[in-house]
Amino acid sequence: MGPHPAVAAIRLAVRRVLNDIAAQVPDTFTAAHNPVPSARPAFRPVGDVDPRHAKLRTPRPRPAPDAPLVLVACSGGADSMALAAATAFEAAKLGLRAGAVTVDHGLQRGSTSRAVEVAGRLRALGLDPVDALGVHVGRDGGPESAARDARYAALDSAAERHGASVVLLGHTRDDQAETVLLGLARGSGPRSLSGMAAATGRYRRPFLDLDRAVTRQACAVLDLPVWDDPHNIDPAYTRARVRHEVLPVLEKHLGGGVVEALARTARLFRDDADALDAWAVQAEAEATTDEGLDVTRLAALPPAVRRRVLRRGAIRAGSPPGDLFARHLETMDQLVTDWHGQGPLHLPGAVELRRRSSRLAFRRM
Amino acid sequence: MGPHPAVAAIRLAVRRVLNDIAAQVPDTFTAAHNPVPSARPAFRPVGDVDPRHAKLRTPRPRPAPDAPLVLVACSGGADSMALAAATAFEAAKLGLRAGAVTVDHGLQRGSTSRAVEVAGRLRALGLDPVDALGVHVGRDGGPESAARDARYAALDSAAERHGASVVLLGHTRDDQAETVLLGLARGSGPRSLSGMAAATGRYRRPFLDLDRAVTRQACAVLDLPVWDDPHNIDPAYTRARVRHEVLPVLEKHLGGGVVEALARTARLFRDDADALDAWAVQAEAEATTDEGLDVTRLAALPPAVRRRVLRRGAIRAGSPPGDLFARHLETMDQLVTDWHGQGPLHLPGAVELRRRSSRLAFRRM
Repeated sequence: MGPHPAVAAIRLAVRRVLNDIAAQVPDTFTAAHNPVPSARPAFRPVGDVDPRHAKLRTPRPRPAPDAPLVLVACSGGADSMALAAATAFEAAKLGLRAGAVTVDHGLQRGSTSRAVEVAGRLRALGLDPVDALGVHVGRDGGPESAARDARYAALDSAAERHGASVVLLGHTRDDQAETVLLGLARGSGPRSLSGMAAATGRYRRPFLDLDRAVTRQACAVLDLPVWDDPHNIDPAYTRARVRHEVLPVLEKHLGGGVVEALARTARLFRDDADALDAWAVQAEAEATTDEGLDVTRLAALPPAVRRRVLRRGAIRAGSPPGDLFARHLETMDQLVTDWHGQGPLHLPGAVELRRRSSRLAFRRM
Repeated sequence: MGPHPAVAAIRLAVRRVLNDIAAQVPDTFTAAHNPVPSARPAFRPVGDVDPRHAKLRTPRPRPAPDAPLVLVACSGGADSMALAAATAFEAAKLGLRAGAVTVDHGLQRGSTSRAVEVAGRLRALGLDPVDALGVHVGRDGGPESAARDARYAALDSAAERHGASVVLLGHTRDDQAETVLLGLARGSGPRSLSGMAAATGRYRRPFLDLDRAVTRQACAVLDLPVWDDPHNIDPAYTRARVRHEVLPVLEKHLGGGVVEALARTARLFRDDADALDAWAVQAEAEATTDEGLDVTRLAALPPAVRRRVLRRGAIRAGSPPGDLFARHLETMDQLVTDWHGQGPLHLPGAVELRRRSSRLAFRRM
């Protein structure tokens, strides 16, 4: 018998991501440090076994000390514990090293001993190195945003320190659906609705097409202790409310499959946003002159592309991306489409946008 | 005193749309049939009156019998009764004729006498002509879709018969938000999330930026009797569930302004979808050869554009647009991006897509 379907699913998801990393490893990594397994394995599985399953039981190659390192970000919850277990299993087979980081946000009593406990569980899975890192959570942008910023800073520094190739995150399809709904509620447009990417920089999300229920089941089957973060059910957190109040109502009234529909929507949006961004990059290059952007060229673009060009210009001049709202883009656009001699616009980050005859120029004040 | 803010809001929204139509009317329409009002009006408002308000009380020009005709689609509910009242008021000022159509779907007991009663209310507003049209609602695509198809067919035929320039629809920002949520639940991508357009063909939606609460208030202020369609609160109808169950939960848990955020999202999506469609039209033309679409050119396009080109090709070959799902686009795309000699694809509407060397050709079987 092969592994339980839930376990097979989490391992397959991780294997797809790790294969890309292993493909970049020279053969010598595993060959030099691992003798070719003997034709007759040291033990034989009982009964009539499909060789594909038997393969799982052959002695695993031990990764070289200088093999690429994969780090798992693990809160101790079901999603990231399943990710840690699957990564430990698959990395060994591929000759990769696998470690983990757990972050102590210091926001709850006993969080430090909790982090130490999670680190112990991660070491028990065979992961090495395992870091438990304490962070200081500020207040910028609300509690969820501040915690996220602190967490990613810690993960980045651990990745740098250990020279990790990638950091794996345990976000599931359910997290993706929640992210889409949160973006929708902000009305901030297609890019924010495109949710989380499967790959951004050093981060990978192997479980983005898996349901949370699968990771929970895998943990149960593998007998992994998991810890439910009370923040995930704390209604003070918007995401917790989306998870426990909003999505169930959507599922009930709009028919099942809402989570999958939201995740699919996110993928389509991501493709659309990528295509339009590519167009905007090219359009910006074509419209750029020594005195600023050529208004005639801008006016010939579709509004969706023109606004992206204007947004890029404002950000390059120093506007913080998160502070540029639809109304800013609207007034910038009017300098092109509804020109009647308006004065300069004052944009976030002390950026000024001024039209002079047929040129638009951004300037940091 | 000017009109109540809710009444001012509905009139302004209608005026913005009617101005465009009036701008196309030669001056003779009103000048020939309406004597210049005397410098001293037939009556004087009591008290000290701002001349802008007094103007509302001067005798209205009577539109010429051959002036452009605007038709209001009216169910008798608050949204469309407010629309009918504002249209009667504004059309007269602009020298346009204004009529109305109410559709009897024949789905409820007493619907015919209800339609006759609504028609009487519309005539009382000064609208002329007013049609009460009975339709037969089929079953294709579910009850809401079938009723909508029958309704638009009746509106189209009335517009043709009376030679109407435009037909006004009473959809509000709330309807727009509901449409976006319904599209989201289907996961059918950006185009379906872009909701309803302010203008499509002969149809105009003047209230798309107004809240439903404003139309209700305007009806109360103007003492207009309104009729609440029981289908709007019948949980058998998905839209009714979105309105009464889903949106209130979103508003409660994601913070107010969800309706506005959804409507804003719809506008952004519409712009994005328009830009990408324009790109796809051009990309399709450039990739078209005598033997089909050039795979090399298709492969160089961003996925979002390539899939739109493939979708256009399938529809042109005969696939019904509503039957083309994400999975069809996925397998079509694989003929470009993951070619290993696959056989021809069978698409909805008996359309075949076949790759031969570097060409993709659609064919109706």
